[in-house]
Amino acid sequence: MKFVLDAMGGDNAPNAAIKGALLALNITDDVEIILIGNEDAIKNEFVGTIPSRISIHHVTQNIDMHDSGAKVIKAKPDSAIVKGIRLVKDGLADGFISAGHTGAVMTAATLLLGRIPYVKRPALTAYIPSENGGKVICDVGANPDAKPEHLLQFAIMASHYLEYVEKQKHPKIGLINIGEESSKGNELYKKANQLLSAELPNFYGNVEGRHLLDSEANVLICDGFVGNTILKFGEGWMNIFYNSIKKGISESLRYKIGGFLIKPIFNNIKKKYDFEEHGGTPLLGVNGIAIVCHGASGPKSFLNSILLAKKSIDNKLIDYTKRELAAHLEVFK
Amino acid sequence: MKFVLDAMGGDNAPNAAIKGALLALNITDDVEIILIGNEDAIKNEFVGTIPSRISIHHVTQNIDMHDSGAKVIKAKPDSAIVKGIRLVKDGLADGFISAGHTGAVMTAATLLLGRIPYVKRPALTAYIPSENGGKVICDVGANPDAKPEHLLQFAIMASHYLEYVEKQKHPKIGLINIGEESSKGNELYKKANQLLSAELPNFYGNVEGRHLLDSEANVLICDGFVGNTILKFGEGWMNIFYNSIKKGISESLRYKIGGFLIKPIFNNIKKKYDFEEHGGTPLLGVNGIAIVCHGASGPKSFLNSILLAKKSIDNKLIDYTKRELAAHLEVFK
Repeated sequence: MKFVLDAMGGDNAPNAAIKGALLALNITDDVEIILIGNEDAIKNEFVGTIPSRISIHHVTQNIDMHDSGAKVIKAKPDSAIVKGIRLVKDGLADGFISAGHTGAVMTAATLLLGRIPYVKRPALTAYIPSENGGKVICDVGANPDAKPEHLLQFAIMASHYLEYVEKQKHPKIGLINIGEESSKGNELYKKANQLLSAELPNFYGNVEGRHLLDSEANVLICDGFVGNTILKFGEGWMNIFYNSIKKGISESLRYKIGGFLIKPIFNNIKKKYDFEEHGGTPLLGVNGIAIVCHGASGPKSFLNSILLAKKSIDNKLIDYTKRELAAHLEVFK
Repeated sequence: MKFVLDAMGGDNAPNAAIKGALLALNITDDVEIILIGNEDAIKNEFVGTIPSRISIHHVTQNIDMHDSGAKVIKAKPDSAIVKGIRLVKDGLADGFISAGHTGAVMTAATLLLGRIPYVKRPALTAYIPSENGGKVICDVGANPDAKPEHLLQFAIMASHYLEYVEKQKHPKIGLINIGEESSKGNELYKKANQLLSAELPNFYGNVEGRHLLDSEANVLICDGFVGNTILKFGEGWMNIFYNSIKKGISESLRYKIGGFLIKPIFNNIKKKYDFEEHGGTPLLGVNGIAIVCHGASGPKSFLNSILLAKKSIDNKLIDYTKRELAAHLEVFK
């Protein structure tokens, strides 16, 4: 299998992507990597010779966070994201992986690769660590305006991704809401509750904000506005919290000693709740493999994302998504 | 001034409310308290004689979390919440304070006290602690479906509450959104951004989830679905996080010693980020003083809520809310 890795995307580019690619080659013989980006910048990162399973595809344009995701195909046709996804479209690679501009990946993948049959709206999923195995939350930003049928599609796509690719058996689907009773919420969520409840045997019910991390639901469904806000709020708070503790510890010898003694506990928790450790998630609903990674991704995240791309193909994510959506065809017509 | 305190509301009833009332009497000579609830249950909490500035108003019905807030006036007319708010309506008290069923307080206050002129929808506000003084977030659940004009009203009411009652000078108003650019968000938030930007000189702009706690905005505006979800998610995560640390510390002697040494840091952070420490917030837009407290409120929260009720009257919250809304009358027509 051959994957295109956006070497220019993310906070740690191009070093993190390249290191991630090298780690992946050590773990599996089955993978070749095309590093896409500025050739000189990429070559500079290699100390010795470049392994034969890695090739470099040079592009001339750079996408930054000020670019409009929606306009990137026309504005930056020779960028890592647009060119990289084109390689997948043209059958020259099996999947695309990027920690770059999420909106650009989303738009380019949707327009160039198209949607899986029956999909109305591709969706972004994020992995959330939790005490008892990970959860996914979907959508986290692709669809700030959504309809009940879209939420049903997100639920089907995300739960079968967990089941077929991440091998979580019988994942339970929760609908994020402001109360547990099915009558709670706004119009969108009241209708979505009815629809999910009617269509999905593994629908767990509504999950309130306070139980997002500890309810039994493994898949948390919401519109992209709510999902994006929650996800970013969680990250922001985590940072503030850690910084407060760090600052406190630096303030006296007693605290410094105490901090040293319990450091392993913090490292453990930090590792467990680190969004970045897990790697990316596939863009759901797009007719091709496109993995979106967190902007702060390090080598391990890229490694895991490459392995995820491989697992997505090995486990026929796209075929199964199509089949599972087809089972609810009368709703989506 | 005379305030009705719901003795039956919250996780620590009736003890916490009674202790809070006693603390308030020690701090200010200006306040009398009517404890409303089951007379026996209330009297049982007093060790000595009941101070002359405290009276007890007996009611026969109890509201629990399974009651529908919307139906409570008819279903439980002799409950602490309905009767207590009626005392305010009838001019027998100057304000009502409860840590009980928020939906019931919301409905009873709106229907019995009415709305301040020009108010379309009363709103719930929550105080969020942050590094540089507190912030308020509004709405946190009263309006899961909202329109741009409602968000404008929330912004006006919440910012002037901070300014007139909490004495924060020139609070800045942020609109919660999924991107900083004014073009970001869903239809509701795009329109709200335009409206707030046109009407409010102290509009700061959009605030993303990751910066809710550390942006310069002191007032965070959103619909009740988003606000409620964020607020509860924050609380839920805080609990999980603390429990993970506690569990880690209990696991070895080394960690126990470390934990003991840095305990003051945690207590400090916990205190700073404790939603409960601050006490309640006034229901905004209702034509009377009704303070909603967190369900987990302890004596200090009740004390602060009583003082807040007093400050709200001293600083003419209702008159100013009316005046400030009137300045944007053409939008609300």
